Amino acid sequence: MRLASYRTAGEPAGARRTGLVVGERDDWWLHPFPDGTDLVALLAADPGEREAAADAAAQGDGLKPEQVVLLPPVYPVAMRDFLTFEAHVEGVGKGMQGHASVPPEWYAAPSFLFMAPHAVTGAHDDVLMPPDTERLDYELEIAAVICRDVRNVTPGQARAAIGGYCVMNDWSARDVQGREMKLGLGPSKGKDFATTIGPWVVTADELDDCRDADGFLDLAMTVRVNGVETGADRSSHMGWSFEHLVSYASRASWVKAGEVLASGTCASGALAEAWGRTGTLTPPPLKVGDVVEMTIERLGTVRNRIVESTEQVPPIVPARRRVPQGV
Amino acid sequence: MRLASYRTAGEPAGARRTGLVVGERDDWWLHPFPDGTDLVALLAADPGEREAAADAAAQGDGLKPEQVVLLPPVYPVAMRDFLTFEAHVEGVGKGMQGHASVPPEWYAAPSFLFMAPHAVTGAHDDVLMPPDTERLDYELEIAAVICRDVRNVTPGQARAAIGGYCVMNDWSARDVQGREMKLGLGPSKGKDFATTIGPWVVTADELDDCRDADGFLDLAMTVRVNGVETGADRSSHMGWSFEHLVSYASRASWVKAGEVLASGTCASGALAEAWGRTGTLTPPPLKVGDVVEMTIERLGTVRNRIVESTEQVPPIVPARRRVPQGV
Repeated sequence: MRLASYRTAGEPAGARRTGLVVGERDDWWLHPFPDGTDLVALLAADPGEREAAADAAAQGDGLKPEQVVLLPPVYPVAMRDFLTFEAHVEGVGKGMQGHASVPPEWYAAPSFLFMAPHAVTGAHDDVLMPPDTERLDYELEIAAVICRDVRNVTPGQARAAIGGYCVMNDWSARDVQGREMKLGLGPSKGKDFATTIGPWVVTADELDDCRDADGFLDLAMTVRVNGVETGADRSSHMGWSFEHLVSYASRASWVKAGEVLASGTCASGALAEAWGRTGTLTPPPLKVGDVVEMTIERLGTVRNRIVESTEQVPPIVPARRRVPQGV
Repeated sequence: MRLASYRTAGEPAGARRTGLVVGERDDWWLHPFPDGTDLVALLAADPGEREAAADAAAQGDGLKPEQVVLLPPVYPVAMRDFLTFEAHVEGVGKGMQGHASVPPEWYAAPSFLFMAPHAVTGAHDDVLMPPDTERLDYELEIAAVICRDVRNVTPGQARAAIGGYCVMNDWSARDVQGREMKLGLGPSKGKDFATTIGPWVVTADELDDCRDADGFLDLAMTVRVNGVETGADRSSHMGWSFEHLVSYASRASWVKAGEVLASGTCASGALAEAWGRTGTLTPPPLKVGDVVEMTIERLGTVRNRIVESTEQVPPIVPARRRVPQGV
């Protein structure tokens, strides 16, 4: 089952509805659930109840793509971005992560960072060119939406906490990020301007036939810039399954309903990987007018255009230096 | 005005009320606001309205400390932890941040990371010894609670978005954190088990007389382990004021009501700073039974005991290696 968050094209920003997605590729439509239906609650519902709700919704008239604005499936209560694709770590290492090859610590445990939760944008939203960057990049990722609060769960137990999956584009300003990472805290303003999640959530039970022998999801992932394919990989190349990621995150900590956990960039899923490998800015950084399109098999496609920002950003103020120290 | 989140000692976990704090040091009591009063909404209210609500609350009977459990003042919609104390960066640099002195990037802009929002704990809660660590540490910080959604605000405009301030202890497992930071993403599991915020929020207007000539808050900060002072600094040694931090965070991004922005560790505000300077584990890492007490002038005191955990944490699974690559 595919569940979307949306508003109708005439509604003001802030409106938020949940719909059932029917159809394929660009020929899809949305059947509204009753007002107030919560997408995460539907993910957590008993499959029989969810089916009954979907059957009821499907009786009504459908809305065509041009009648709706797709919203991020959830406004996350927290976002964690992992680093699970070994080949990406290797490729991007020198330029971005501060190491020339895959460090031994990568193999030991699935590391992650907490991300900006307010920056999520919808599948077809325009993305404002962020300030201070000449190296705008994308990151092709697959993300899981959590539907139950869990703590200290095994991978087996974690499975019931994963409501479904979607495509994610973790937009990144590499020059800003590179300066930030010199301080050891990881990236922040280099990434907190936009994160596309969508186009909708495909429930986990829909994907049972897409798992490999170890239970890893195995879906083809591709990214295109202005219609030209620039990267492709498979989700089964993650070093850990999503159940492993939830289990690890839940160690002595809560993972909560409404969270988003993302895979990190797949191999060839970012321009910076090519920049790291070759030492040149080829392909070139993204610019205003570029359209980035990401497709994951069975999950759908997100497609965003980069547009010029008219926002007036405040100046960056350097530190007040050499203040008297001591109490 | 001081505003606390609490439940009464007899109420089940999950109950949450807002109270007005009256009295000084350990001789304080709480006057309940009407059920359903939201602490962040009170922070955002017109000062006259807030005073009227407080006057009404103060008519009722007060609750003594033993009658209440102080909760984190907010369950943050996001948490940002900055790195604003130059002397701390210098001290901890080699051990933790991956640089031997203060890098030039530190001076250019107030860097931060997003933190685990679910790990917040109350002012007097016990803290479970986290798994996998032999180097548990504290971090003495001051934190601001945001009461209005802002984007692209100047420091002057940011002032109205800061509802108040509290003490923060950003508990850190240094050995876990050190392994994580080798991957360049910053810390995650090394910090997401507990973050104390409290004991309550002191509204920003209460602190107008505590600002230096540049408008920086100037409050004495101290930390004690088992009653012995182990660190002290002043909040005016931050490289940026909180208004600067909000302004920077808001560049092309939302900073939202209910967020917590923290200063980062003050000078001598973490054991790791001494470990970094001397190359020895002196003073020793925290252990079960230790009590860490942090006081910030005018804001109050948080005091937490470290207790043994009986949680069964799931094992850490290493990466699945050498999977076939390519699409």
